[in-house]
Amino acid sequence: MSLLVLLDYASVLVFALTGALVASRAQLDIVGFFFIACLTAVGGGTLRDVLLNRDTVFWVAEPTYIAIACTAALVVFFTAHLLESRYRALIWLDSLALAVAVPAGVGVAMGMDQPAAIVLIMGMVTGCLGGLMRDVVCNEVPLVLKQGELYASAAFAGAGAALIARELGAGTLTVLAACALLTWVLRAGSLAFGWRLPVYKSRPPRV
Amino acid sequence: MSLLVLLDYASVLVFALTGALVASRAQLDIVGFFFIACLTAVGGGTLRDVLLNRDTVFWVAEPTYIAIACTAALVVFFTAHLLESRYRALIWLDSLALAVAVPAGVGVAMGMDQPAAIVLIMGMVTGCLGGLMRDVVCNEVPLVLKQGELYASAAFAGAGAALIARELGAGTLTVLAACALLTWVLRAGSLAFGWRLPVYKSRPPRV
Amino acid sequence: MSLLVLLDYASVLVFALTGALVASRAQLDIVGFFFIACLTAVGGGTLRDVLLNRDTVFWVAEPTYIAIACTAALVVFFTAHLLESRYRALIWLDSLALAVAVPAGVGVAMGMDQPAAIVLIMGMVTGCLGGLMRDVVCNEVPLVLKQGELYASAAFAGAGAALIARELGAGTLTVLAACALLTWVLRAGSLAFGWRLPVYKSRPPRV
Repeated sequence: MSLLVLLDYASVLVFALTGALVASRAQLDIVGFFFIACLTAVGGGTLRDVLLNRDTVFWVAEPTYIAIACTAALVVFFTAHLLESRYRALIWLDSLALAVAVPAGVGVAMGMDQPAAIVLIMGMVTGCLGGLMRDVVCNEVPLVLKQGELYASAAFAGAGAALIARELGAGTLTVLAACALLTWVLRAGSLAFGWRLPVYKSRPPRV
Repeated sequence: MSLLVLLDYASVLVFALTGALVASRAQLDIVGFFFIACLTAVGGGTLRDVLLNRDTVFWVAEPTYIAIACTAALVVFFTAHLLESRYRALIWLDSLALAVAVPAGVGVAMGMDQPAAIVLIMGMVTGCLGGLMRDVVCNEVPLVLKQGELYASAAFAGAGAALIARELGAGTLTVLAACALLTWVLRAGSLAFGWRLPVYKSRPPRV
Repeated sequence: MSLLVLLDYASVLVFALTGALVASRAQLDIVGFFFIACLTAVGGGTLRDVLLNRDTVFWVAEPTYIAIACTAALVVFFTAHLLESRYRALIWLDSLALAVAVPAGVGVAMGMDQPAAIVLIMGMVTGCLGGLMRDVVCNEVPLVLKQGELYASAAFAGAGAALIARELGAGTLTVLAACALLTWVLRAGSLAFGWRLPVYKSRPPRV
């Protein structure tokens, strides 16, 4: 199994867990769990494939992805009550999913010899959009838009690290590992230590 | 006219009526009615066609669909005040639309020889996504996420029935009729008699 | 540079400014500004390209669009506090963006010899959908759904004017100029003088 395929599998699995956790917070039934888990798991990668005009969307070509997402939903349906705090589990799993999905997007775009700007964007789309769809559909405040947290910024930095590593002549494994690592460190640092970028705040908002 | 095309026409018509009813609840003008009616009517099928990478999206190939949706919007614009309860009309029309759109999705996926998991998903996407877009854009609580109602579950069961019927060697008409019937019976039973699946509720929500 | 490409550039620039203004109202950091600016700037055109099954999405083929959107976001990040009212700047810039994006959509659809209904829809999709995505993601009331304002209606009329101008044998420049002008006049008239279509209001809403 190639590295890129492995990344897609891992990102589907972890994003599906986060989707099922959100479904548990919305008190859906088991099919609702499947629905939100699949939407979250394949949302970002689907958009990546449609935007890049790949011949087939990754999970249409290989429905095992869907089976994985549904299995993850099933596990969460029966075990989520064991968690101390579902919200903490959700944001930390989501940080892992982000750190896996960004290199999954970057890797596909690099494999198609896209220019740097497109590589950056595909990393961010694959990383951020599945979670955004999950939160918009379930009416949660999108994690990607939480004030004063690194999220899209972490994805951006991670994808940038991959581009720099490639310029320096690193191999694919190193490039994608650097991407995943920087993304996760920034996101986790933001969650644990409150790292942030300055936000726009020159005036009272919503004037 | 083939059976599949007929299903697409019927689902466009009924979904457009539901979209126009939601537009009437949001007090939009006539172009707003057209907009929401078209979004609802072709949303699910469009996503199906994009995901399956069909050569042309069904309504781009044949704009009659749009004319039908706009006509439905026009009729609702001038007659919705005659309804006893617009909300009751909305949910019952929506149940019909679901029962028509799920086989429309299933039929297309089967016609492309997709594996069972993709057939299931295309049934659910075609059935549920148009209504979901309508509700997200108009800021209604999405019917697909209403707690303790069968909706995605009805679509899931209907698409499953189609797969089983095909395994048993039934003809296309029987397969799609079984799908439509089971979807509608489950959805209508949920609306009329409160049929439901157990929801996830092991703890107070939103902890 | 062809007229159509110029329209795409102009619409990307102006929509990116509106996206960044919304990001400033949501007090996002600079990457959040980039994200919302790009989403708004290319959202409508991307959907147009996916629906029309063009070989490549316009900004994937030419990432300069992304650079423009990010530059616009950067400028707004550092200058938005100079504005008297960010909301007034937002709605007026948005009216300009609409007036540029509608002919951008109409022009592409006409160039592909699509039938009239598709030309109308692509004008509306390209004009309205980027702003709609911006508002749904940032949880603002979508401008396109504001009661009693011309928005989708202005796009509809503009696209219709283009079709009529073409029927009358006008050249491409005239066709697109008529489209832009009518769209903007109607939208601006609605903002400045309260022009509107009758809305559906035969009953108290949300019954």
